[in-house]
Amino acid sequence: MNLFCRFEKDNKINYGIVKDNIVQSIEGNIFGDWKVGNESYLLGEVKLLPPVEPSKIVCVGLNYHSTIKRLNAAVPEEPVIFLKPPSAIIGDGDNIIFPSDVKELGYEVELAVIIKDKIKSVNYNEALKHVFGYTIANDLTAKDKMTGGPWTKAKSYDTFLPLGPWIATDLDPNNAKLEMYINGNMTQNGNTSDMVFDVAYLISYISKIMTLCPGDVIITGTPPGAGLLNPGDYVEAKIEGIGVLRNYVVKEC
Amino acid sequence: MNLFCRFEKDNKINYGIVKDNIVQSIEGNIFGDWKVGNESYLLGEVKLLPPVEPSKIVCVGLNYHSTIKRLNAAVPEEPVIFLKPPSAIIGDGDNIIFPSDVKELGYEVELAVIIKDKIKSVNYNEALKHVFGYTIANDLTAKDKMTGGPWTKAKSYDTFLPLGPWIATDLDPNNAKLEMYINGNMTQNGNTSDMVFDVAYLISYISKIMTLCPGDVIITGTPPGAGLLNPGDYVEAKIEGIGVLRNYVVKEC
Repeated sequence: MNLFCRFEKDNKINYGIVKDNIVQSIEGNIFGDWKVGNESYLLGEVKLLPPVEPSKIVCVGLNYHSTIKRLNAAVPEEPVIFLKPPSAIIGDGDNIIFPSDVKELGYEVELAVIIKDKIKSVNYNEALKHVFGYTIANDLTAKDKMTGGPWTKAKSYDTFLPLGPWIATDLDPNNAKLEMYINGNMTQNGNTSDMVFDVAYLISYISKIMTLCPGDVIITGTPPGAGLLNPGDYVEAKIEGIGVLRNYVVKEC
Repeated sequence: MNLFCRFEKDNKINYGIVKDNIVQSIEGNIFGDWKVGNESYLLGEVKLLPPVEPSKIVCVGLNYHSTIKRLNAAVPEEPVIFLKPPSAIIGDGDNIIFPSDVKELGYEVELAVIIKDKIKSVNYNEALKHVFGYTIANDLTAKDKMTGGPWTKAKSYDTFLPLGPWIATDLDPNNAKLEMYINGNMTQNGNTSDMVFDVAYLISYISKIMTLCPGDVIITGTPPGAGLLNPGDYVEAKIEGIGVLRNYVVKEC
């Protein structure tokens, strides 16, 4: 079990391994060969970056039974997928920008799957072998821009995908506890066991449509309780076994 | 005026400039500094690749007045945008794969805009200064997968974005003639002057939502006449001042 992070220190960007509040630098490519490097820092001494730079981010809507029930929606016959652009990603500690033309900014804690290798059309039983690890996502949406047609405008503003703080290589994706706290108050509380389509199913399904590449991200839907954010809010998305993803909300200047 | 291509020769990938059926290699980054290289080849001796590797592809639907009229649709109040993943891109001469689970494969010739630099929230009057050049796109859609909700599944299969053959740095985006030929028969015939939201408007609009990066692609909608493809079809998308993008359709094995 490793916790892989990407960080900036003295204007240099590195990958590292996090252990007991220490970041140990690594050399090489986390998706290929790497070895432990020479530098180590206290976690507080570095700026954490989003842990990956994906070629694409595939998102899944309506994927928790209890969320669907609360919305009085029908259980989808197949996964509802959409894309976010890489430009939407921010890391732990970065600010969420509340765009000036947006009225309602929704949050959703989600398990994010990081793909390990280039895959196309993998079977359900093989799918989890192609996972590099897991991190935490906050799928932000301009709710007032969900006005029919494609979801892209509502989902794609800069900073609308907080991702991090790091990648945990070992986690049971079928039994992970997710929680969201807004200003310290718990608003979401669920478990990935409640998913309609589990992580292996999602990887298999998506890979039959499009080739997935190392570092690509799949975010897997949200448990009930998702709500709206306001400027000034402090947002903590937690997944047991990974950590906490923390961001403040600020108004667009 | 340059025609920039990306090509493979002897397992090496290079950028080049096309002139009179000759590809002249260049050194450096087409979005930064470059100079003419030492190698030149006949166009037929190289394998053309998609001319860019974008971080994102933003697509625009319902953007030609005459298409909207023919569909009896309402003119959108603002651009209808959606994303395609980079994994959908193929180049000139590559095969379009007709997926085995798709029944209706639609084609659409479109003007593709290649962004020059990193931009956020640019004004209409400044927008065209941030264009590197223009190429041809074929926006392929699994029409039978457009079943409500996000458009992603229908638009994102591998090979669903033929792009190329190269980038023309000089073109009037407000007066470019587009044509589509299927097996030699013209099926689409329009001019970008018929756009509801012109290229400058689209760049400004999209950049207010998301940061655009060098090489990012905006595809700008299609004139009337778009139809369906079958395995075995030969597809030629033409834009005057750029060239012809040619692809065969083959069945997924």
